[in-house]
Amino acid sequence: MSEHASGPDERSYHMTPGEFRRQGRAVIDLIADYLERIEEFPVLSPVQPGEVRAALPGSPPERGEPLADMLADVERVILPGLTHWQSPSFFGFFPANSSGPSVLGELLSAGLGVQGMLWATSPACTELETLVLDWLAELLALPAGFRSDSPAGGAVIQDSASSAVLCALVAARERATRGLVGTAGGAAAGQLTTYCSAEAHSSVEKAVRIAGVGTDNLRRVAVDDRLALDPAALEAALATDVAAGATPVLVVATVGTTGTTAIDPLPAVAAVCDRYAVWLHVDAAMSGTAALCPEFRWIHEGLDRADSYSVNPHKWMFTNFDCDAFYVADRAALVSALSILPEYLRNAATESGAVIDYRDWQVPLGRRFRALKLWFVLRHYGAGGLRHHVREHVAIAQKLAGWVRADSRFELAAPVPLNLVCFRHVDGDVATERVMAEVNGSGAAYLSSTRVCGRLVIRVSVGGTLTRAAHVKAAWGRLQQAADGL
Amino acid sequence: MSEHASGPDERSYHMTPGEFRRQGRAVIDLIADYLERIEEFPVLSPVQPGEVRAALPGSPPERGEPLADMLADVERVILPGLTHWQSPSFFGFFPANSSGPSVLGELLSAGLGVQGMLWATSPACTELETLVLDWLAELLALPAGFRSDSPAGGAVIQDSASSAVLCALVAARERATRGLVGTAGGAAAGQLTTYCSAEAHSSVEKAVRIAGVGTDNLRRVAVDDRLALDPAALEAALATDVAAGATPVLVVATVGTTGTTAIDPLPAVAAVCDRYAVWLHVDAAMSGTAALCPEFRWIHEGLDRADSYSVNPHKWMFTNFDCDAFYVADRAALVSALSILPEYLRNAATESGAVIDYRDWQVPLGRRFRALKLWFVLRHYGAGGLRHHVREHVAIAQKLAGWVRADSRFELAAPVPLNLVCFRHVDGDVATERVMAEVNGSGAAYLSSTRVCGRLVIRVSVGGTLTRAAHVKAAWGRLQQAADGL
Repeated sequence: MSEHASGPDERSYHMTPGEFRRQGRAVIDLIADYLERIEEFPVLSPVQPGEVRAALPGSPPERGEPLADMLADVERVILPGLTHWQSPSFFGFFPANSSGPSVLGELLSAGLGVQGMLWATSPACTELETLVLDWLAELLALPAGFRSDSPAGGAVIQDSASSAVLCALVAARERATRGLVGTAGGAAAGQLTTYCSAEAHSSVEKAVRIAGVGTDNLRRVAVDDRLALDPAALEAALATDVAAGATPVLVVATVGTTGTTAIDPLPAVAAVCDRYAVWLHVDAAMSGTAALCPEFRWIHEGLDRADSYSVNPHKWMFTNFDCDAFYVADRAALVSALSILPEYLRNAATESGAVIDYRDWQVPLGRRFRALKLWFVLRHYGAGGLRHHVREHVAIAQKLAGWVRADSRFELAAPVPLNLVCFRHVDGDVATERVMAEVNGSGAAYLSSTRVCGRLVIRVSVGGTLTRAAHVKAAWGRLQQAADGL
Repeated sequence: MSEHASGPDERSYHMTPGEFRRQGRAVIDLIADYLERIEEFPVLSPVQPGEVRAALPGSPPERGEPLADMLADVERVILPGLTHWQSPSFFGFFPANSSGPSVLGELLSAGLGVQGMLWATSPACTELETLVLDWLAELLALPAGFRSDSPAGGAVIQDSASSAVLCALVAARERATRGLVGTAGGAAAGQLTTYCSAEAHSSVEKAVRIAGVGTDNLRRVAVDDRLALDPAALEAALATDVAAGATPVLVVATVGTTGTTAIDPLPAVAAVCDRYAVWLHVDAAMSGTAALCPEFRWIHEGLDRADSYSVNPHKWMFTNFDCDAFYVADRAALVSALSILPEYLRNAATESGAVIDYRDWQVPLGRRFRALKLWFVLRHYGAGGLRHHVREHVAIAQKLAGWVRADSRFELAAPVPLNLVCFRHVDGDVATERVMAEVNGSGAAYLSSTRVCGRLVIRVSVGGTLTRAAHVKAAWGRLQQAADGL
């Protein structure tokens, strides 16, 4: 049993601060031990459906149990059931990297246990968030109009880029319909249309569905041979819709598609959006982090004409999920779309207008103190440290691209502008699938796939905190071995 | 500077596991120290707008800084800028209680750093979540049809009850329109209507706005003298709308309104919903935790006829934000409303149909391993420990209600079914405001307010982890002193 302090009047089951000190060390040690031996685990969990649940009791305990029992179950049941995203040989999907300072910032946030829904409910929670997002804007050289200390702009931490694009869509929808949908409903507003490239993230379609705009009204605009949005095709789609009487509300451009890190041409897209007065949201969840380095800032060219922007420190900036940074050029459009003030949240600070109440910038009401972890990361690494690691990841990916080019059995399937390498076996999908499955099945590395122009493609996403050149080289060696065995 | 390990090839700025052990202890100690002296801080932060930001550098550092510097700034700038939600004398808004095991579960989740968007991306993350939500269903004696091991039902952890009601609304909207809004948009579906009591949470209105149903189409149904939804008024509103050709999509009933913990009469509301075939969502964010104790399970009577239900362990069940448990009777309706499967997320487990992919149960794609903290809490306390503390909170609130009744200068403003006491000064709003402001300004306790029947009311919400009878007694004493001084 855990230590149960007893007050003068009655029994308490709460963990005392003394016990928290002792148990906290045990959990810190468990994490450090895990990171030290993370390469011993198969990267992709080999468990079968139902196996984890079956290894645990079907009902909760009536009496409390010691934390040591939970930690033993973590070792016995949970760790074997994980796919190890922090493994240096995890190359699937996208990076979801993390770091010591980030984990400790998350811990501190949980330990302080404050709610940041209003400025008044914990001023430091709001003000630190506003500040670190301005810091991040400086580090990424974002347009000044997105900064919270600009006249109209501002930024907020969202849980994810999916929530950010939903908020952008709702704000854009209300701007385009002068608030008509939010009040009178979609039936009153006629046909609304939205636009993104055929390669844009599924979150755009999800947002369009949730917001009731309808997936039939989402135009999946054609891409060029680099898999980037074709501005002429966008303009043609807008012209057709406007001629048909529709109201275009949102264009989403992507800086780094999930499939292949294609970079949509923002200057040309922004020019089209200007002509049609449609909200431009730039989804840089995947690749915006690259702009820490001046040599990669070309990806953001034209961003000064966007209405909103999001980037995920929880992907490639050593900050554990969740931490999406969402910037808007016109905070009033966002806040007016999402603000509802019930009586029990009224307070003098809100009514003064001198503060930000972040509940009006997001779907949920409540919010954690997520700025702490981003603050810890930016200060621990400093700008120089962050740039160092981003450059290292890009350099490793470029090396891999070179190895692929040099092996006649493989071919690159898309340009490699940054840290994602997409390639296939020249013999076609079956061979590509087989070499990938062999590496994934070995547990030595994990790669995921997509389709480019209908053909199966292996994706190697380089962005793990612990990933060094040697890990990518080893995975490439295994792929080559698998190709030898075909 | 922090310790920077150097590999054979290049410099690394990452925190090593050894350094993480050392720094982790420092953060654990900071939290334990904070909790030990939490009563020394003014509960409501006295800082002025801009004060926190002004105390920190305007730009991020170029070179990394040691964690000790961040922790010193936490002490110097952050702690004074907090409103202390974990203080035993915090009685504002709602409980956002926490506990040692929960904080350590959050820490472990951050440390493991896995993504639970698909079963395949970390099977244990999904399966533990499904299991602990079935445990919670058992502890709260929820209807069997909400359990994940039932034929049609299931449950998921959402960040908040706001997101849960949005998901319920989208699922209900798609069920009522046979998917028409999600595909063709709101313009194709005609007028959709939604219903909740005049006392329901602002999240209903926010969801209605986000989903494009429109706030004009949200019927705020009248309440009875206990501030609970009047089923006859609900039926009348539905009849009027249907006669006018509208399509009703969602009724939200509340088990514990935020204002006064009014409990809507579920059996009668469910009967009305049955007659109109409209989705019934039960929002028990505030009070559902009470059903841990058999003597309070009357609050859920009629729940077996609801379509969805949400309760917040992050309010009153010692689990730090965010952890909303969202249950549905028909998981297919939810998943079909939210599921989008892009090529890069395809995998064998998903295609087998044998697993849950929780990305289809929520707005975001990514998700943390939040089940760990709830699992730690349920096991640390055991059912008995949780019941003990919930009973203690209710008993303290009932004591306070008695003290209010016994003081002729104050009067209760609403029934006190559980752990929230609403009362006012008999001299009216000015007197009520003055006594409350005096206590809040003293820093000794924090109370928030609402309006009941147009009159200002002090709310004392009893649910803090560290709150004992003595803290409530002291706050009451201060209110009485303030009344003496009027």
